[in-house]
Amino acid sequence: MFSATSNRPDGPGGPNGPIPRKTGTGMPIVGMVGGGQLARMTAQAAIGLGASFRVLAGSASESAALVTSDVAVGSHLSLADVSSFASGCDVVTFDHEHVPGEVLASVESSGVLVRPGSAALRFTQDKLAMREKLSSLGVPCPRFAGVSCLADVEAFAESVGGLAGGSAGEPGGGSAGGSWPVVLKAVSGGYDGKGVWVASSSREAASIVDAATSRGLSLLAEEFVPFRRELAALAARSPSKQGAVYPVVETVQVEGVCREVIAPAPGLAAPVAESAQSLALTIASALDVVGLLAVELFETPSGSLLVNELAMRPHNSGHWTMDGARTSQFEQHLRAVLDLPLGSPAPVAAGGFTVMANILGGTDPDVYDRYVHVMAADPALKVHFYGKEIRPGRKVGHVNLAGGRGEAVAPLRDRARRAASYLRWGTEDGD
Amino acid sequence: MFSATSNRPDGPGGPNGPIPRKTGTGMPIVGMVGGGQLARMTAQAAIGLGASFRVLAGSASESAALVTSDVAVGSHLSLADVSSFASGCDVVTFDHEHVPGEVLASVESSGVLVRPGSAALRFTQDKLAMREKLSSLGVPCPRFAGVSCLADVEAFAESVGGLAGGSAGEPGGGSAGGSWPVVLKAVSGGYDGKGVWVASSSREAASIVDAATSRGLSLLAEEFVPFRRELAALAARSPSKQGAVYPVVETVQVEGVCREVIAPAPGLAAPVAESAQSLALTIASALDVVGLLAVELFETPSGSLLVNELAMRPHNSGHWTMDGARTSQFEQHLRAVLDLPLGSPAPVAAGGFTVMANILGGTDPDVYDRYVHVMAADPALKVHFYGKEIRPGRKVGHVNLAGGRGEAVAPLRDRARRAASYLRWGTEDGD
Repeated sequence: MFSATSNRPDGPGGPNGPIPRKTGTGMPIVGMVGGGQLARMTAQAAIGLGASFRVLAGSASESAALVTSDVAVGSHLSLADVSSFASGCDVVTFDHEHVPGEVLASVESSGVLVRPGSAALRFTQDKLAMREKLSSLGVPCPRFAGVSCLADVEAFAESVGGLAGGSAGEPGGGSAGGSWPVVLKAVSGGYDGKGVWVASSSREAASIVDAATSRGLSLLAEEFVPFRRELAALAARSPSKQGAVYPVVETVQVEGVCREVIAPAPGLAAPVAESAQSLALTIASALDVVGLLAVELFETPSGSLLVNELAMRPHNSGHWTMDGARTSQFEQHLRAVLDLPLGSPAPVAAGGFTVMANILGGTDPDVYDRYVHVMAADPALKVHFYGKEIRPGRKVGHVNLAGGRGEAVAPLRDRARRAASYLRWGTEDGD
Repeated sequence: MFSATSNRPDGPGGPNGPIPRKTGTGMPIVGMVGGGQLARMTAQAAIGLGASFRVLAGSASESAALVTSDVAVGSHLSLADVSSFASGCDVVTFDHEHVPGEVLASVESSGVLVRPGSAALRFTQDKLAMREKLSSLGVPCPRFAGVSCLADVEAFAESVGGLAGGSAGEPGGGSAGGSWPVVLKAVSGGYDGKGVWVASSSREAASIVDAATSRGLSLLAEEFVPFRRELAALAARSPSKQGAVYPVVETVQVEGVCREVIAPAPGLAAPVAESAQSLALTIASALDVVGLLAVELFETPSGSLLVNELAMRPHNSGHWTMDGARTSQFEQHLRAVLDLPLGSPAPVAAGGFTVMANILGGTDPDVYDRYVHVMAADPALKVHFYGKEIRPGRKVGHVNLAGGRGEAVAPLRDRARRAASYLRWGTEDGD
């Protein structure tokens, strides 16, 4: 039956062709490496699509393993575990970027479809390679340099100070001893603010470099960007080269952890929003991403955009789509990796805002009474729980609140924040 | 920690109190008896709520069993199987009404929460008891009588003919030999048009009565109602006596099988809609329903309402809520049976229509190419597949299409119907 698809090279089957299925007439089997909440919510989307979904989880009690019927327990670092898992799948994808490149390459060479592929994923695993690639594409980024000792960091600070204009150099730009602070990042392995440090002086840089060196971490220095706010653009791209991009959102981070997302970003000028969407689609294409690409951005005081980070998977900045967009990011990721036509990324209520607030764990491990209270207080609120043990500061769920056309964003933010605070602390103004 | 709830007798904990949980700090465990698509979609909703979800399925390949991590295989007719299943749950609910009353009663007497309870479910298992109960409540129904032989049916036809006004008696009302046709229904066990016959004459009634008698079926005779269209009202009720009701929908049946649902029912006068919603809430309360109650209604040519059928579970007429309402019927059912505060039943896009069309199986068991085509043709369409083997006429999925405020309903219906037709037949005008 698939022979007919050779007649439609630009159709849904596309240049890569439809996925050869391991089962006769069933839907293709998607395997996701990683058993966290992103895999859990992808499992939820797979149910609706009718796709068969497998998870490789570190343990049977991980968030996604609790709700998926087909779970393999193993390590994403082990070639044997990942290969064995992949052999039962039509296509393999990821809920994180921590599978080693050599494991990915080995699975790819065995003939299993890996989406996104190792060549694309490398740019989420190696931040220096990402910066170099984006710069070569002319994508605006903070200035950066690979650094291996304090002298490298000082030289970088000096060069930024020397180059900096008035705004980029603040605070302290161009002063004697270079432009401080400087951002230092682990080239590999960071997430949620981990692996990112701000050194406000040469002395602070020295201790960061020492600590990193002793742990065997390679470092990258980046210009400290005084931004107005953070934005994110989320695009999907399929092997057939179809692209789709969601409305650009504002993200609010506290201590490196995403706390709130507002979709679309309030008051964002249309040309800037279009430019951010265009950047996401351009990067997805240039890096040959298959699946989702989340581009975290700084909006500078002058209104220009700089790329901060990339992720090639469902992303916290896209959780609002579950209740605010026609196609959730989780369904969209599955459609892309399955080479299905992409779904509409349009908001469910045109002209309305959707606000997402992360639920972080508090000190009480039993959230149930607070959960009941929050549901009673706001019946329009959508609570998404990840089934994770409550630990202080851990992301254990999120709430979404979708407003109607013309509904003001401030009260929506307030309601979402109060719910997240109550779930964490038992009080509406805890954070 | 739960002692505090005694201070809020009318609050979320309510008169029945919170559910004592088998696990320490986890969410309560909901068990659903039945492994069909309703349980599958309930499993999807349970993931978001963070509830632990179990299914008692007839086999490991049933629709819900394919996507649920905690599946017991057994028969819903077996006291041992249902009891064993229930003993691992905090609360038990159902994706169909076919668990025998004595099994329900036994599980209830063992102390397990059964929601809805056997006393309420009886009115979905015994249509004569349902008619008698509704009549005693003053709820408008078609005239009816229990019948055990042809003479009973003829006497019923005669009595309806004698009582009928001009409109209700047509066609043939009041003529010699009584008012025909007469609707004959199996008192127990029917669904999707099965167990319902229309006898247009005494001779036809004779053969229906003979066939039913030989199969040991009890029969109910009902007045044939010449309706303008069919409507459905879907309400939820919690043990705390909270009620919530969705917008009233129009349902389109073909040969007794629901094919299309339009939410809200186009052009329905507000007082009629309110009357239907009020009926659903009244019946839910009078029958002490916990969970969802779907009330199928006839709208007569004069604009009055008559109750046709009841169901106490997620219902095909509520599938539109998955993409068209803030709270899906599946989440709402779980919230009700868990005695959580109910979610908002409001449409996602105020002033917009949502259309649902069922996907029936065609003759080609491999639907995948057609699935790809439909997704490419209409990116706003939401396709929900049940993972069931394709068999001619079998409900294997549905599509939802949510329109924006002020968007005309006819093109939405057309798009949804074309998609369902293409998925079935490979052509957009197959049915």
